[in-house]
Amino acid sequence: MTPASTTSGQLEQILSGLGSPTDEEVATLDAWWRACNYLTIGQIYLKDNALLKRPLTRDDIKPRLLGHWGTSPGLSFIYAHVSRLITLTGQQTIYLTGPGHGGPALVAAGWLEGTYSEIYPDVSQDEAGIHRLFRQFSAPGGIPSHVSVTTPGSIHEGGELGYVLVHAFGSVMDNPDLLSIAVVGDGEAETGPLEGSWKGISFINPARDGAVLPILHLNDAKIGGPTVLGRKDPDEVRSLLTGHGYRVIEVTGDDLPGMHHRFAAALADAFADINAIQQSARSNHWSGERPHWPMIVLRSPKGWTGPATVDGVKVTGTFRSHQVPLSGVRENPEHLQLLEEWLRSYRPEELFDTHGRPVESIAAAHPEGDLRMSASPHANGGLLTHSLALPDFREFAMEVDRPGAELAESTRRWGELLAEVYRRMGDNFRLFCPDETNSNRLGAVFEVSDRAFMERVGPDDVQISADGRVMEVLSEHNCHGWLEGYTLTGRHGLFATYEAFAMVSASQTVQHGKWLEEAGRLSWRAKIPSLNVLLTSTCWRNDHNGFSHQGPGLIQTMLTHRGEVVRIYLPPDANCLLSVGDHCLRSKSYVNLIVIDKQPQPQWLDIDSAIAHCARGAGVWPWAGNENPDRDPDIVLACAGDVVTMETVAAAQILNERLPDFRVRVVNVVDLMTLPRPKDHPHGMSETYFRELFTDRAHVIFSFHGFPGAIHQLVHGRPDADRFHVRGFIEQGTTTTPFDMTVRNQASRFHLVMDALNNSTRTPAGATELLAWCRSKIAEHNDYVVENLEDLPEIRDWVSQRNGQHPEE
Amino acid sequence: MTPASTTSGQLEQILSGLGSPTDEEVATLDAWWRACNYLTIGQIYLKDNALLKRPLTRDDIKPRLLGHWGTSPGLSFIYAHVSRLITLTGQQTIYLTGPGHGGPALVAAGWLEGTYSEIYPDVSQDEAGIHRLFRQFSAPGGIPSHVSVTTPGSIHEGGELGYVLVHAFGSVMDNPDLLSIAVVGDGEAETGPLEGSWKGISFINPARDGAVLPILHLNDAKIGGPTVLGRKDPDEVRSLLTGHGYRVIEVTGDDLPGMHHRFAAALADAFADINAIQQSARSNHWSGERPHWPMIVLRSPKGWTGPATVDGVKVTGTFRSHQVPLSGVRENPEHLQLLEEWLRSYRPEELFDTHGRPVESIAAAHPEGDLRMSASPHANGGLLTHSLALPDFREFAMEVDRPGAELAESTRRWGELLAEVYRRMGDNFRLFCPDETNSNRLGAVFEVSDRAFMERVGPDDVQISADGRVMEVLSEHNCHGWLEGYTLTGRHGLFATYEAFAMVSASQTVQHGKWLEEAGRLSWRAKIPSLNVLLTSTCWRNDHNGFSHQGPGLIQTMLTHRGEVVRIYLPPDANCLLSVGDHCLRSKSYVNLIVIDKQPQPQWLDIDSAIAHCARGAGVWPWAGNENPDRDPDIVLACAGDVVTMETVAAAQILNERLPDFRVRVVNVVDLMTLPRPKDHPHGMSETYFRELFTDRAHVIFSFHGFPGAIHQLVHGRPDADRFHVRGFIEQGTTTTPFDMTVRNQASRFHLVMDALNNSTRTPAGATELLAWCRSKIAEHNDYVVENLEDLPEIRDWVSQRNGQHPEE
Repeated sequence: MTPASTTSGQLEQILSGLGSPTDEEVATLDAWWRACNYLTIGQIYLKDNALLKRPLTRDDIKPRLLGHWGTSPGLSFIYAHVSRLITLTGQQTIYLTGPGHGGPALVAAGWLEGTYSEIYPDVSQDEAGIHRLFRQFSAPGGIPSHVSVTTPGSIHEGGELGYVLVHAFGSVMDNPDLLSIAVVGDGEAETGPLEGSWKGISFINPARDGAVLPILHLNDAKIGGPTVLGRKDPDEVRSLLTGHGYRVIEVTGDDLPGMHHRFAAALADAFADINAIQQSARSNHWSGERPHWPMIVLRSPKGWTGPATVDGVKVTGTFRSHQVPLSGVRENPEHLQLLEEWLRSYRPEELFDTHGRPVESIAAAHPEGDLRMSASPHANGGLLTHSLALPDFREFAMEVDRPGAELAESTRRWGELLAEVYRRMGDNFRLFCPDETNSNRLGAVFEVSDRAFMERVGPDDVQISADGRVMEVLSEHNCHGWLEGYTLTGRHGLFATYEAFAMVSASQTVQHGKWLEEAGRLSWRAKIPSLNVLLTSTCWRNDHNGFSHQGPGLIQTMLTHRGEVVRIYLPPDANCLLSVGDHCLRSKSYVNLIVIDKQPQPQWLDIDSAIAHCARGAGVWPWAGNENPDRDPDIVLACAGDVVTMETVAAAQILNERLPDFRVRVVNVVDLMTLPRPKDHPHGMSETYFRELFTDRAHVIFSFHGFPGAIHQLVHGRPDADRFHVRGFIEQGTTTTPFDMTVRNQASRFHLVMDALNNSTRTPAGATELLAWCRSKIAEHNDYVVENLEDLPEIRDWVSQRNGQHPEE
Repeated sequence: MTPASTTSGQLEQILSGLGSPTDEEVATLDAWWRACNYLTIGQIYLKDNALLKRPLTRDDIKPRLLGHWGTSPGLSFIYAHVSRLITLTGQQTIYLTGPGHGGPALVAAGWLEGTYSEIYPDVSQDEAGIHRLFRQFSAPGGIPSHVSVTTPGSIHEGGELGYVLVHAFGSVMDNPDLLSIAVVGDGEAETGPLEGSWKGISFINPARDGAVLPILHLNDAKIGGPTVLGRKDPDEVRSLLTGHGYRVIEVTGDDLPGMHHRFAAALADAFADINAIQQSARSNHWSGERPHWPMIVLRSPKGWTGPATVDGVKVTGTFRSHQVPLSGVRENPEHLQLLEEWLRSYRPEELFDTHGRPVESIAAAHPEGDLRMSASPHANGGLLTHSLALPDFREFAMEVDRPGAELAESTRRWGELLAEVYRRMGDNFRLFCPDETNSNRLGAVFEVSDRAFMERVGPDDVQISADGRVMEVLSEHNCHGWLEGYTLTGRHGLFATYEAFAMVSASQTVQHGKWLEEAGRLSWRAKIPSLNVLLTSTCWRNDHNGFSHQGPGLIQTMLTHRGEVVRIYLPPDANCLLSVGDHCLRSKSYVNLIVIDKQPQPQWLDIDSAIAHCARGAGVWPWAGNENPDRDPDIVLACAGDVVTMETVAAAQILNERLPDFRVRVVNVVDLMTLPRPKDHPHGMSETYFRELFTDRAHVIFSFHGFPGAIHQLVHGRPDADRFHVRGFIEQGTTTTPFDMTVRNQASRFHLVMDALNNSTRTPAGATELLAWCRSKIAEHNDYVVENLEDLPEIRDWVSQRNGQHPEE
């Protein structure tokens, strides 16, 4: 949206100028574009002679030619025109590059805008800087080939394809003054996540959100052949995008300067439309209907302005220009000659002065200061981040008089806290969830905010409107990606989803983690709000949905992140969830995973104990075992996760009651990353504390929420790790009862008791009888399941009720 | 396609009848549908009084009400009509249920068709059987609530949403006589993978593939609210689907019998169109253009025929009927009354005789034998599986005179073998790959088969045509899902992809693994060809692409599968790849993961040694170490993966040359699942062999291709697992040189030598000097990287060349 001070008459004039550039303006645009293309090719090919002050020789060429030329000229063509739009209108804009392997084009743009040298003084705006610019590209110790974290102005690498639109839509939510240009490559457009993300406009409210301008760049080919959208009948492409809800503006060709004129007109048309949509929505006369937002389809040749043919074969306009169109430059003098001609075709002498500085007209052809897309604070969102004004989470605490005495839905408390966050900072926080907010017991947020929805709402609908800010769409990809875009531009959020289906977006979790890992190494990148993921319909309690809904695999995936970004919490009850959740919402630049089920579950700790327990991350629960200060326990029962904690406490109770002399310690782990060694994770507990909890040599029956292998790998390297015997989810499930899930996975209280007795170094009197009793209980259960379908009662969960003992006691 | 014996005159008559059912036919259709709905509701609610022979009481109701009513009546409505189509035309047809939580509807259909009782005799076609049918649903020891593996006629659970079209398209590839009906729910239609899968028709050749008929079932709501497509302007929906390339046929309403007439007409229209398309394509006059395949948009109310309002609130037609529309039946007599009225509205007395058998007209209303959709052998694809006529893989072997003497691209050999498979069994095998077949060095297949593509092909395109059978689309979701559908219906295939981006489809790998795990428990499910996944652009050699392309996470995900389905191979060279690959292509009902890079790499074993080595899965490489038969080694250098094997052999060579008295054993692991204990995986090596390889107490420096945690978890429980020190990918990467990747991840030969010396129980003379030398080599490398950007040569990989020793020697 243009600055408020602009009158409508001024705006009309600006838009008219924007759409009809003078010949002089086109010449400037074209010169800037040529400079950008020149610098792009230089990055791919040259290690010397950057300004072509002498004829090109073999020795000027890098020994290893890396990079992607094909998409680059299209990217910089669009960039040049958007820069002009910004200059004329003052519009705050960021640029998201779907075809991220066009990295050198964006690096070149940042350098031309001066931002690159401001951030990386070594890469100065002169001949030495150009040399450095060229040499560092795709080189050891240099910069990656994609539009990566190191690229100023980027919030989107474009490495793993499919997410440019989700990032763009996330970036404009509650960001009313931002325009996000999202270039979608036709290769990327073949992916599922991208195709599923066009529908972002069904959730964007022009009154309070910014705008996304998608530019579908059809250049017909990917690495090895044509693309579906590139080769489809253009009528079908138009129909498809119209069906997604857009007004399609098309620009096709390779003629110059014709393309400049036509693209400028298209961009002005789109911008005028966006302005009109926003002004209408922000006036009092808005119908509330979803606008038909504009988008542009740009059809230009792959490798545009590159060598038309090489060795008699057509290159430009085909898949052959995808990467390095002239690949034999060092060996083949003809190729070398072609390269020189190609570079000189941009007339570098007109673009750079003898010192290698961009000539004045080019230096003046970009917006100033923060309006440069490479310098936009929106693309360094930590600069714009306001901390959440969080309520005191203690106010949402459960009363817990004694451990395990009462059942409650822990996430409901957390939902009430989130509702308060919405109340206080509704435009700085959003919850993203695939259609399960109520199901996940977070529905309290609907007291403050509806679901967002820009399509038709009917009389039977509830808690849904254009004004809503709770984001529900049945797409983990959209939810996850929107949240990424939202946090990358500086706001806070939470992605809540079914545990099993968190694997749908696991690759996004991986890629965002990689982004954060790399961002942490760059001092100029301000820290951004963490990506918070809440898994709250978990494997143990998807007993009603069955096996496909039972899978704690995201924990495994999270463990592959570097320690500096990954945090995994398994709060056993509501008060621990509140403590952990508060910490996550305040944290920055982590990927926080919180796993806790939504079903009624025993509550263990009062709020003060919970806070102390979560601060340590892991601790002994003396009230659950029978600690003896003078002697080590015979066995340690450890647990991480809600259901397994219940089974562990129950197992300890059985042991305490039936074999009172058998010394049992119960350890609960909230922060999973306390388990590895400090050198493997910053949360890793000291060896001293590890020995304090788990002793030096007692065997540990570890009951884990997820796959047992996670614990095996986390304790590897700890003293005598072999003594850890892990129970967990072993991929056994179906539609059944909650207790049957624990039996199927050999993690029931009875299994844990047997494990304790079978692994203790001391065999207490009565062990044989208790083992037999446990076996009989399991057999009884199994018989029950097989034989007694008729009654079908729920098998009651036997919740430990300790005799009024308080954790503090 | 209708049977070849049908004349066109007969066909016209059949189609005309199909589209214009008589009143009597509609009555039969409706009765069948009512019976199916009745049985659906019974499964959700009743544990007794199944035929309503007496008034319903509280005790007849299940204590826990599970299941999803909302989508079910629409699913059975379509099913009834398709059954009639099959009866009239003899068309081989399977039914894929996108909204898989409508499980009870499909179970009911299978029971009405008699298939259910044939497979599960306990669930007989009589009153006792109905009782069993009702009680087993969503009950412990019973059946899951989804269209799961236990449901006859299903190849698609529909639990994790998004894959119904990919499965359907895969099922018809090289399956010319099959029609796959794919019901897409409007919830599922919001997912990325589904939206990205409409484009399947751009790859289906009507001349040699079967047909998919998508039925987009818009019932307007998902669990908590409206859907995007349900609420979009119908013009936009039509435009969207037209843009995807379909001819859209729409049926809307809830009036009866009007809906029967209109849907029958729509189905006849679609079927006639499919027939015409196939007949034209299979004649000599086909233009080769992609057809505008028909599809149906069915708009019917959610929970159609259910209670209109409950407690004064509208239920049918809203999200409230998604699961159990009457939830208080046991507590609320009014709800109980409503349920009884609802059940009686289907007039069960007209549908079942007093013995609970379907009345004759209903029993006759379905196709016979294998034509019943619940009995189609296409949905039990193992019945139709023909083993691949594989060439002798030895013929593709590399000559290896001595280990490590030559570099070769291992996957190129494998590609040549695959080309031969295409040559021999082109309609029984397909390669699926996101645009990387050539890049992955598998391009030999193009000598036999083009890429499949039904869109426009131009003069500059190569190796691409409508007749091609190599499947390239830039979508891991499509590739993976097509292969699943292809193998589930009995044919063989391979999914080859970049290692990092295998995470994009990881959740599909998980869900297919779950399917296979469950199928293995059902004797009536014939084993199907394995899902083969080849990762061949791996983390260590994505040095040219950078960090986002570097991630071996799929191994971690695979390790969560049950041992009975998961197989993971890391062949270190071409001959091992051939041996392993041959085994995978012959295997059934596994998920086989093969990880090997495509770049030139040292070749270690001749073919006979490779076969022997792969058969063992893991073994000592005596030629690489300095084995002494009389004494245990001082250190074991173990490795799994190609690049890490090269570094390990090089480290052993350094040790051998510089400290000849230091006894080094080299162990290579090809089959990763030999590492766990036999009780944890069927391939797990015996403890005896484990001790033989790794000794009782020598420390093991294990250099692993993937994340170190994988090895930690695999060796947990092995004798003295603490002595395993694992190097692997530790999430360090960028665009750099191959060798630098090993240094960044502390897994270079120099690191391994240092690890060996630092962890050996014996410190040999010269250790201090060698440690210092290693440190200097690493420092030298790092300085080189930082300082020497100018020259940028590739750091040469120092490949071990042993003095002519042969593995056999």
